[in-house]
Amino acid sequence: MKGNIMADATVYFEDIAVGDSIAFGPLTVSREETIAFAAEFDAQPFHLSDEAAAATHFGTLSASGWHTTALFMKMFVTEMQRDPGRQAASLGAMGVDELRWLRPVRPGDTLRGTSEVIAKKASQSRPEMGIVHSKVTILNQDDDAVLTMIPIALWRTRPV
Amino acid sequence: MKGNIMADATVYFEDIAVGDSIAFGPLTVSREETIAFAAEFDAQPFHLSDEAAAATHFGTLSASGWHTTALFMKMFVTEMQRDPGRQAASLGAMGVDELRWLRPVRPGDTLRGTSEVIAKKASQSRPEMGIVHSKVTILNQDDDAVLTMIPIALWRTRPV
Repeated sequence: MKGNIMADATVYFEDIAVGDSIAFGPLTVSREETIAFAAEFDAQPFHLSDEAAAATHFGTLSASGWHTTALFMKMFVTEMQRDPGRQAASLGAMGVDELRWLRPVRPGDTLRGTSEVIAKKASQSRPEMGIVHSKVTILNQDDDAVLTMIPIALWRTRPV
Repeated sequence: MKGNIMADATVYFEDIAVGDSIAFGPLTVSREETIAFAAEFDAQPFHLSDEAAAATHFGTLSASGWHTTALFMKMFVTEMQRDPGRQAASLGAMGVDELRWLRPVRPGDTLRGTSEVIAKKASQSRPEMGIVHSKVTILNQDDDAVLTMIPIALWRTRPV
């Protein structure tokens, strides 16, 4: 991020460059939160008990994939909010391409990852924002990738 | 779904046809759960208060996009578990393509949707499972689409 910190600490769309990378995490996933999230949002047997998971390719209890994406967001927002100028310019996301849950996330796993800008373009319809594509990779404590995806974020452009 | 219910109530990969469609919902999103999910997983100001949202294109408080995907899963699993033969054959998902958050989801919105099978193929590496692509569309109470995506699910093949 190459923000013009002398004039304005906000990191606008114009300050973001392809290749910029942010590391996030670590975060350790507990058995209690794994089961609580699944019970609320994804109550399939293999996300609720080791016994049911043993009857599937999961083998033992694994987190809902939507829990993993929520934990990504928790790690990423925590990191982003270390820099108030970045939070000030974030306008959420329009979507995600190529989300892949590559390996199960299990209770006790410690996750961390990186988000690297791979493309950016101005919005055709809304000149006050730009569109940033990033490649996200989440690893576990064994350095195995558990998730990859390409979020498509919206970012404020510098006021004219 | 064209399960051979006389021999085996399980809906295997072979029983799933392109064009099969499932409706899910309705589910109404409360302000309390919207803020609680954001506070836990996506604590950006525009997901936490109307005041902060007013400074962005969101206008008023909106749910985290990851909350919307979790609520999709809640509605979908609820519907799937009405048919134990479908739950028995579900092996989770390997990913999602083309996830798009089309409109904000706001407290008080009532969501519902459909999931339609658009493609299926055998797994090359694991003959005990097949791969099913579905197009998911989530609407709000005004019939506006708030989310579309293409989950890629894994499904048990019929035992030989």
